[in-house]
Amino acid sequence: MSTNEGYTRQVTTLARLLIQQKWTVTAAESCTGGGVANAFTSLAGSSTWFEQSWVTYSNKAKATLLDVPESVLNEHGAVSAQTVEAMANGAAKNASADVAIAVSGIAGPGGGTETKPVGLVWFGFYIKGQVYSDKMLFKGDREAVRCQAIQYGLEKLNQGLVAALQ
Amino acid sequence: MSTNEGYTRQVTTLARLLIQQKWTVTAAESCTGGGVANAFTSLAGSSTWFEQSWVTYSNKAKATLLDVPESVLNEHGAVSAQTVEAMANGAAKNASADVAIAVSGIAGPGGGTETKPVGLVWFGFYIKGQVYSDKMLFKGDREAVRCQAIQYGLEKLNQGLVAALQ
Repeated sequence: MSTNEGYTRQVTTLARLLIQQKWTVTAAESCTGGGVANAFTSLAGSSTWFEQSWVTYSNKAKATLLDVPESVLNEHGAVSAQTVEAMANGAAKNASADVAIAVSGIAGPGGGTETKPVGLVWFGFYIKGQVYSDKMLFKGDREAVRCQAIQYGLEKLNQGLVAALQ
Repeated sequence: MSTNEGYTRQVTTLARLLIQQKWTVTAAESCTGGGVANAFTSLAGSSTWFEQSWVTYSNKAKATLLDVPESVLNEHGAVSAQTVEAMANGAAKNASADVAIAVSGIAGPGGGTETKPVGLVWFGFYIKGQVYSDKMLFKGDREAVRCQAIQYGLEKLNQGLVAALQ
């Protein structure tokens, strides 16, 4: 199964859940750089449940476009639970969306540290006012880390939606 | 050559041109849904010349996030020279970027009309205050149209930069 086929399956499930609730989703992406939004819009008819999203690659963009407090970025860094939760919250608010996903990680090959190695990716989720986060350490090169992050983010978003709707 | 390899070649050239000028680029994407930003950030070190971009899938998002006048959207439609030029201009202004690319088209399978068929994609470019646009009619399914649009947009952006720097 190609990566694209993997996305399609996840996005089809996501679309079904959102359409059922008449909800919209948005995204705030750092290391995936638009890959989540690209997966959303790979599905025809996605305009029903997706209107807009942000790629915020720099800290300044995270603060300016998504209202991530500079104190959060300074204290915890861009790759942290606090930052992705603020990104998801800011994106949902600014898009007036019911659901949001945020992704910030270290895709590599540079930028890794002992406490935040290459492959570490934080995910923030906003579902109807509930905000939470999750992290994963992916293996492989830059492309592999980014692809796995998109896939994992979509999976977790769907799981969160299913749980929220129970 | 895979599509990704094609992007890599284009993005490597783009990065060289931008770094040379100490310029930054941004993007405003509709039908490509984040694919251009995803191509930008596929290159390690892209944070030097890329800070942020927008996926504006709905007309409202184009107006709200990129300051595309509603009169332009109403009169010419989202897939038009006027709209992509306003998107590129708005993105460059809002990102304080030197260069911007905007993409709006009909990826299909639905949404086509006689005058604006499936596969029609408009590209807007902003290079240091100069704004212009270009269009192409791509063949193939939704994925093929979107991939070709990313590829063509990057090629044209590089050509525009090379011309502007002569």
